Amino acid sequence: MTTLPDTLPSTIQGMKTLPPYKLVSRDNHPQNTVIKLGTAQIGKGTTIIAGPCAVENRETMLKLASSLSSLGVHILRGGAYKPRTSPYSFDGLGKEGLEILAEAKKYSGLPIITELTDIRHIDLLCAYADIIQVGSRNMQNFSLLKELGRVNHPVMLKRGLSATLEEWLLAAEYIMAEGNPNVILCERGIRSFDSYTRNTFDINAVPAIKNLSHLPLIADPSHGTGRRELVAPVAKAALAAGADGIMVEVHPQPAQALSDGQQSLTLDEMGQMMAQMKSVAPQLAG
Amino acid sequence: MTTLPDTLPSTIQGMKTLPPYKLVSRDNHPQNTVIKLGTAQIGKGTTIIAGPCAVENRETMLKLASSLSSLGVHILRGGAYKPRTSPYSFDGLGKEGLEILAEAKKYSGLPIITELTDIRHIDLLCAYADIIQVGSRNMQNFSLLKELGRVNHPVMLKRGLSATLEEWLLAAEYIMAEGNPNVILCERGIRSFDSYTRNTFDINAVPAIKNLSHLPLIADPSHGTGRRELVAPVAKAALAAGADGIMVEVHPQPAQALSDGQQSLTLDEMGQMMAQMKSVAPQLAG
Amino acid sequence: MTTLPDTLPSTIQGMKTLPPYKLVSRDNHPQNTVIKLGTAQIGKGTTIIAGPCAVENRETMLKLASSLSSLGVHILRGGAYKPRTSPYSFDGLGKEGLEILAEAKKYSGLPIITELTDIRHIDLLCAYADIIQVGSRNMQNFSLLKELGRVNHPVMLKRGLSATLEEWLLAAEYIMAEGNPNVILCERGIRSFDSYTRNTFDINAVPAIKNLSHLPLIADPSHGTGRRELVAPVAKAALAAGADGIMVEVHPQPAQALSDGQQSLTLDEMGQMMAQMKSVAPQLAG
Amino acid sequence: MTTLPDTLPSTIQGMKTLPPYKLVSRDNHPQNTVIKLGTAQIGKGTTIIAGPCAVENRETMLKLASSLSSLGVHILRGGAYKPRTSPYSFDGLGKEGLEILAEAKKYSGLPIITELTDIRHIDLLCAYADIIQVGSRNMQNFSLLKELGRVNHPVMLKRGLSATLEEWLLAAEYIMAEGNPNVILCERGIRSFDSYTRNTFDINAVPAIKNLSHLPLIADPSHGTGRRELVAPVAKAALAAGADGIMVEVHPQPAQALSDGQQSLTLDEMGQMMAQMKSVAPQLAG
Repeated sequence: MTTLPDTLPSTIQGMKTLPPYKLVSRDNHPQNTVIKLGTAQIGKGTTIIAGPCAVENRETMLKLASSLSSLGVHILRGGAYKPRTSPYSFDGLGKEGLEILAEAKKYSGLPIITELTDIRHIDLLCAYADIIQVGSRNMQNFSLLKELGRVNHPVMLKRGLSATLEEWLLAAEYIMAEGNPNVILCERGIRSFDSYTRNTFDINAVPAIKNLSHLPLIADPSHGTGRRELVAPVAKAALAAGADGIMVEVHPQPAQALSDGQQSLTLDEMGQMMAQMKSVAPQLAG
Repeated sequence: MTTLPDTLPSTIQGMKTLPPYKLVSRDNHPQNTVIKLGTAQIGKGTTIIAGPCAVENRETMLKLASSLSSLGVHILRGGAYKPRTSPYSFDGLGKEGLEILAEAKKYSGLPIITELTDIRHIDLLCAYADIIQVGSRNMQNFSLLKELGRVNHPVMLKRGLSATLEEWLLAAEYIMAEGNPNVILCERGIRSFDSYTRNTFDINAVPAIKNLSHLPLIADPSHGTGRRELVAPVAKAALAAGADGIMVEVHPQPAQALSDGQQSLTLDEMGQMMAQMKSVAPQLAG
Repeated sequence: MTTLPDTLPSTIQGMKTLPPYKLVSRDNHPQNTVIKLGTAQIGKGTTIIAGPCAVENRETMLKLASSLSSLGVHILRGGAYKPRTSPYSFDGLGKEGLEILAEAKKYSGLPIITELTDIRHIDLLCAYADIIQVGSRNMQNFSLLKELGRVNHPVMLKRGLSATLEEWLLAAEYIMAEGNPNVILCERGIRSFDSYTRNTFDINAVPAIKNLSHLPLIADPSHGTGRRELVAPVAKAALAAGADGIMVEVHPQPAQALSDGQQSLTLDEMGQMMAQMKSVAPQLAG
Repeated sequence: MTTLPDTLPSTIQGMKTLPPYKLVSRDNHPQNTVIKLGTAQIGKGTTIIAGPCAVENRETMLKLASSLSSLGVHILRGGAYKPRTSPYSFDGLGKEGLEILAEAKKYSGLPIITELTDIRHIDLLCAYADIIQVGSRNMQNFSLLKELGRVNHPVMLKRGLSATLEEWLLAAEYIMAEGNPNVILCERGIRSFDSYTRNTFDINAVPAIKNLSHLPLIADPSHGTGRRELVAPVAKAALAAGADGIMVEVHPQPAQALSDGQQSLTLDEMGQMMAQMKSVAPQLAG
């Protein structure tokens, strides 16, 4: 009779002997972590983060920030340093982008989230941003994670393109193990075989992560689908499954966006989505 | 300067020249297809299908059917012929299972859905079942699809484990092209790299399919997650994203189930989920 | 301290309790299975199978068969019944195709392999073909597998698009459990995220399957890559890794092929590949 | 009649408008890039790189280096800074590891390759290493890639876990665009659904990359399989498919290794593999 010891995959065998996650685990910290920022309480109720993929120019950004604030958005997103697949693509305005974000924050009253792509920019970003975003491509950039563990800013850690839940939680553990408890997880879709959508939003991950960890979980249906017409239904789905909020890309004229135009909502569409989300997140009302 | 003609993947090139789906397309049939069956109108409002993975014995099945009916379930599921990965696993009671289902239907008033695994059983199943289910493993069993196109019974076509949306819709087209317009699609999760869940429920597919096709779409969060504690949140998510209903596995004693125990709800859990779903599917109330 | 019982994936837990494969296992049958057919000994030395995707017309097929025989090919492939993603694509000549194959066999002396797509065609195919092929889409069509277990014809079982090694071996077990020991496995690429190639040929599967099972393993680099220019290097790789042979698509004029033209070799290319393979399969020489 | 404009996936549409790779392209640089280092000519003939996953202690490393040199290995690998999934795993000896590597180089005459995990260590690593390795997790750490474009050291760029060929080549383009032409690509397996092996070695990528680019390509069958018994067959396969060499993990006592023991060869196994590879890489002989 054949037994199956050899077919137990090595990755699983490895998992058993890994020192597992501790600080991120709900077993060791049953109550939700809540991060307060402006009018948002990330991890309690529903937090809405919105803004363009990249900061493109001052005037547009200021107007957009103001409009998003009127719509009830809590936090403004915008990339100043953009990781791009090609070295020849627009990769953000850099420090000038950060200054525009600071002005938009002043003008709209909205806290700012922006992405860190270079470990040497941490001090600079901490001077401008309220939340530091770690993108999917850097989810296992461990030296960057460790440095972010030594600041107090909240860190939003996006899931890697093909990261398991275990790997994602252990990446968050890297930040917490250095002393920063303010970690927010962001599900943004995983890579699958179907190219109809840019990524496959992993709805299973929403309740699974909320069971395994006390950290807040934000859903990104813009990257999770890559198609404008799918953003609102997937946003509602994520909230219905227990996500603590959503982050979406909004651009006044998506067709002119320098990046991610296909997945960016117009302001009108954002307004409609805010209204629709109230059915699954009643506290958004009023 | 390099151009990229060669890097345009052949599968995509192929898609362009494929005769695309016609009969399943919403472009050619803007209004939703609605299939009426007992108290259910599949494709209008929210349809709930529930029952055990496999029919195991008469008494349990009858009691369960009656309980599910009381909870507001519209259609009873139960496998008499089960496709199993191993030839040595329990593969259903066969005709005896069908007879138990018929009795359960009589006793509870619920219409019956059961799976077809062998083209030679079509007449038999049509004599007992109200809906014929085609499982994931048979999604591209084209001779079986064609035969189902020649009957009038509604057919529920589950998405293959790694089928693209295009392939899935073209499988439905096989049935419709032979003359049977009563096709229901069922998203039940795709295979991904993460083994924390049995499959990855593809929430993007829900609004995408509803855009592309007029056919009803049912979500199966039991197979889509493979873990009992994730079934209710993913069911709610699917309805929030626009699914026309859900199909779930329920077993009076999941730990004793002959198959799929880990993903089966107890009756209590089913009752709680029915209550929770009202927030995303108000017409379920009352 | 967190422990990890819950993160041990359910699929793996399931594997442990599955009745594992027995008859396909090398543990229970240490020596290689060898299937003799014409000049081929499948499972000993290197077997070359070649021919068009589909039988398209008599004259072309006869000429091609004769040319392939001259090149040292052992077995002729050709589809009479073709599973096609769309119901509107050319799906083979059916019985007429089988008759052409029979004539090509007579003319060239080469045994024939052709695909079974409908359980009701088994007797017909057994009357014409020397090896019955089960395609990827039918790898878990268990009723078909069982019927093939009741004939004596060798069966070539292609791996499903996203089948694990375990699932593939258990599908072979279905055939053997019914009494037919003449099973040949065929690795033809799995579905992955990269669309540059049609499939991802799983080279790891070659030595893994040869370790786990005594059955012969044939590699299909045509479907495994989907691109003509990659067929020869991947064929050589498969043989270097221990495959018992290869199956390739050859067409006199690939640009005119009714299916799979992009991955079909010309006769010249086939001849060149035969020469190149001798470096990794010396017994092909002379 | 339905047309399919919308189903052309956005990622593909994006590819068309991306400034494609230029400097890495074989179209613009038909002849192979060859990097000379010690007795190796990477990109011409077959280069063998071997050594432990991590440098663990001085004595073992020196002995191993000497033994590997005797076996005909050209370059010594060893990690001083190790990226680890968990923050609680052994992550290398750091600078002490580099010093041991320097001593091993002196003692054995073999050039050294070691991994860079932190952009701030570039100068340090350049002082010790002959080739700088960029690991899979950092394949799209663009700030690190740009800095490596400003040094002259050869850089070995491992493919990301789920990177497409396009993304991988564009990552190499980042390094070349900054002025460093000495880039070596390393295929080390991609993530798939099957957990029998740690990764799925993408054999298709070997000839595909050699067609698309003039850069040398090294295969890593240790990470590509994760199982010791599969390393030699996959190494031979990669060479048969056209790889310019292989990199393998070797440990004097794999069962005692602090990392990657399951995929490390013993010295005896390494010797046997060197002998076997001569059939596919005749220039290794003598």
